Amino acid sequence: MPASPFVPVIPAGGAGTRLWPLSRRSRPKFLLDLTGDGRSLLQSTVERLLPLADHPPIVVTGVDHEESVREQLAEVGSAHVVPEPSPRNSMPAIALAAALVEREHPEAVIGSFAADHLIGDHEAFLRAVGIARRAAEGGDLVTLGIAPTHPATGFGYIEQGAPDGADGASAELPSGAHRVVRFVEKPDRERAEEFLASGRFLWNAGMFVVRASVLLDELAVQIPSLAAGVREIAAAHGTAQHQEVLERIWPRLTSIAIDHALAEPLAADGKVVVVPADLGWDDVGDFAALARQLREHRKAAESSEGEETVPDAGDVRVLGSVRVDAVSSRATVYGATDRLIALVGLDGISIVDTEDALLVLADEQAQDLSVLVARLERHGLGHLR
Amino acid sequence: MPASPFVPVIPAGGAGTRLWPLSRRSRPKFLLDLTGDGRSLLQSTVERLLPLADHPPIVVTGVDHEESVREQLAEVGSAHVVPEPSPRNSMPAIALAAALVEREHPEAVIGSFAADHLIGDHEAFLRAVGIARRAAEGGDLVTLGIAPTHPATGFGYIEQGAPDGADGASAELPSGAHRVVRFVEKPDRERAEEFLASGRFLWNAGMFVVRASVLLDELAVQIPSLAAGVREIAAAHGTAQHQEVLERIWPRLTSIAIDHALAEPLAADGKVVVVPADLGWDDVGDFAALARQLREHRKAAESSEGEETVPDAGDVRVLGSVRVDAVSSRATVYGATDRLIALVGLDGISIVDTEDALLVLADEQAQDLSVLVARLERHGLGHLR
Repeated sequence: MPASPFVPVIPAGGAGTRLWPLSRRSRPKFLLDLTGDGRSLLQSTVERLLPLADHPPIVVTGVDHEESVREQLAEVGSAHVVPEPSPRNSMPAIALAAALVEREHPEAVIGSFAADHLIGDHEAFLRAVGIARRAAEGGDLVTLGIAPTHPATGFGYIEQGAPDGADGASAELPSGAHRVVRFVEKPDRERAEEFLASGRFLWNAGMFVVRASVLLDELAVQIPSLAAGVREIAAAHGTAQHQEVLERIWPRLTSIAIDHALAEPLAADGKVVVVPADLGWDDVGDFAALARQLREHRKAAESSEGEETVPDAGDVRVLGSVRVDAVSSRATVYGATDRLIALVGLDGISIVDTEDALLVLADEQAQDLSVLVARLERHGLGHLR
Repeated sequence: MPASPFVPVIPAGGAGTRLWPLSRRSRPKFLLDLTGDGRSLLQSTVERLLPLADHPPIVVTGVDHEESVREQLAEVGSAHVVPEPSPRNSMPAIALAAALVEREHPEAVIGSFAADHLIGDHEAFLRAVGIARRAAEGGDLVTLGIAPTHPATGFGYIEQGAPDGADGASAELPSGAHRVVRFVEKPDRERAEEFLASGRFLWNAGMFVVRASVLLDELAVQIPSLAAGVREIAAAHGTAQHQEVLERIWPRLTSIAIDHALAEPLAADGKVVVVPADLGWDDVGDFAALARQLREHRKAAESSEGEETVPDAGDVRVLGSVRVDAVSSRATVYGATDRLIALVGLDGISIVDTEDALLVLADEQAQDLSVLVARLERHGLGHLR
């Protein structure tokens, strides 16, 4: 059993332009119920972590979403919301949470998990976090690595060392943890295939478990002003000066991802550990991923059966209350309008029906959606983002 | 020059379920502007025929559409609207028009042309009708036959005899006219390919030119009650009894297509003539045909050009005022809503965006739309037809 108290940290940010117009600036991905189970991704993330939490989870989010986040959290349990005055990428958000935890619980281990990913296997997740917590108590930065199922080019990779002290450095690690050799940024297809074939590489899902004090002390070595800044904000927490201190310091913090600020340099120093895990994890990064999720987990839309002259509806999944009828179609439909949506002969198409925008997208080109969203502004349609 | 006066007849009916939800029961295909030139198919049909008409064209339409038809006709010129109390297929409609013409102009030749087809080559059309009128003055039933461009299975075919009297029966025909051997109903693919290869077969586009009195006299032989019925209705036209006579007789008239009632039996008797013609004709029978038309005739939607990082919009045609943005898509969009329609990676897709129904259809399965429309009723959505 881990000895130190555990505090979950949930950075809730990100534009999610690859799920537009389902996700909008005003309603980002983590606030959406993308599984149809009645809970947003944020709510599911908090619920998954609550059984592990020795103190309330900390959710760091933009001031624009603070109110929506508080409303959603009120439905699932106790959590502490920390608003960011402006987006500064993941390192300042996680470091601020670490500084708040360090002040109250100096021995605590934090675990940082994105607010907008899906985890299918809760048991495996709890087991992996348990191993990661024990490894983190030894002073390492610990990450969960996802066993890759295909040569994905959309994720960064983690190269793990040999297990069980064979590389001379892992002897002290708990079973199931491996020293990390290096982090690798999103590879091209060829390298991704090499990674998959080697069996040594894992997907980087951005899940980090570490003592709050270790994170801040290591950050103080890498980017001293950032560590000092968040510690100063945390010190002012609960005082009359807090808002003034936050607004003065926050905009000057280095905007950087935790991977670049800490994980990569610490891996080079042999201070990072990975716990390989098969969690049924999905970052639901675009409509192709979401369609795959819904195809696995949700039943097909009602279709007219039992009549010889009616071709099969095919395989149509619906998220939302919209009414759909289909002939020979494999498609995913998102909508809550009161229109009928009729589909004929579609193969691998996603449709998002909203009041002010309609998207029709071929799943295999789901990545290209960001191109279209990026130019909304230029076409005078920025209000639709 | 033809010697007899010419009166165009335009049956304006048909459900057009293969263009739903663009066409509806309350707004059938012939009332729609499907080319974006500001005129409905009915208006274009009337305009095309007006230069030939010695007396105002007669438009026969259902009572439900009488008002819309009158409004549209007021914009393009003088025409006579004859309402049908109920749909009885094409023969009663054309025969009633013939009876009205016969009463006023006993020597007149009528030409019957569907209200919802497109003709691309007006010159060729005028030439072909001129030949057909001269042939019709000889007492034959004359049809225009479309030179087939592919082995279509959605049309009936006309087999023409040898030209120039070689078959012993065509010596008296004007140049460009051929005796018809037989009419053939929609063939399967294999027969359609044989027809195309033979060079003897033409598409039956339902265009008939004939003396009004010949049509009625021949009909009196084939279906005596039908000929007598329409002549009785025509005799009452303009009298106080007209409505009573119409409502008494019309429901008892045989519901039958002109092809079965007259063209097929008269062809067997050697009394039908065809004028082969290359008219740029299209019956715009489904969304695949409409997409083809719009691809040939309309410019692509505006797309963002000149920026290296933006993939091509592709080839997107838009009918209506809806705003469309696309990435790498070949698609056709119909809509007048004020939503943005965004397309990514589509290939051969038609999208119809209306207030109460959205259709997304693969053009290559356009024929299957009728299956879906047919079951609207069963799903309690009959009001959407």
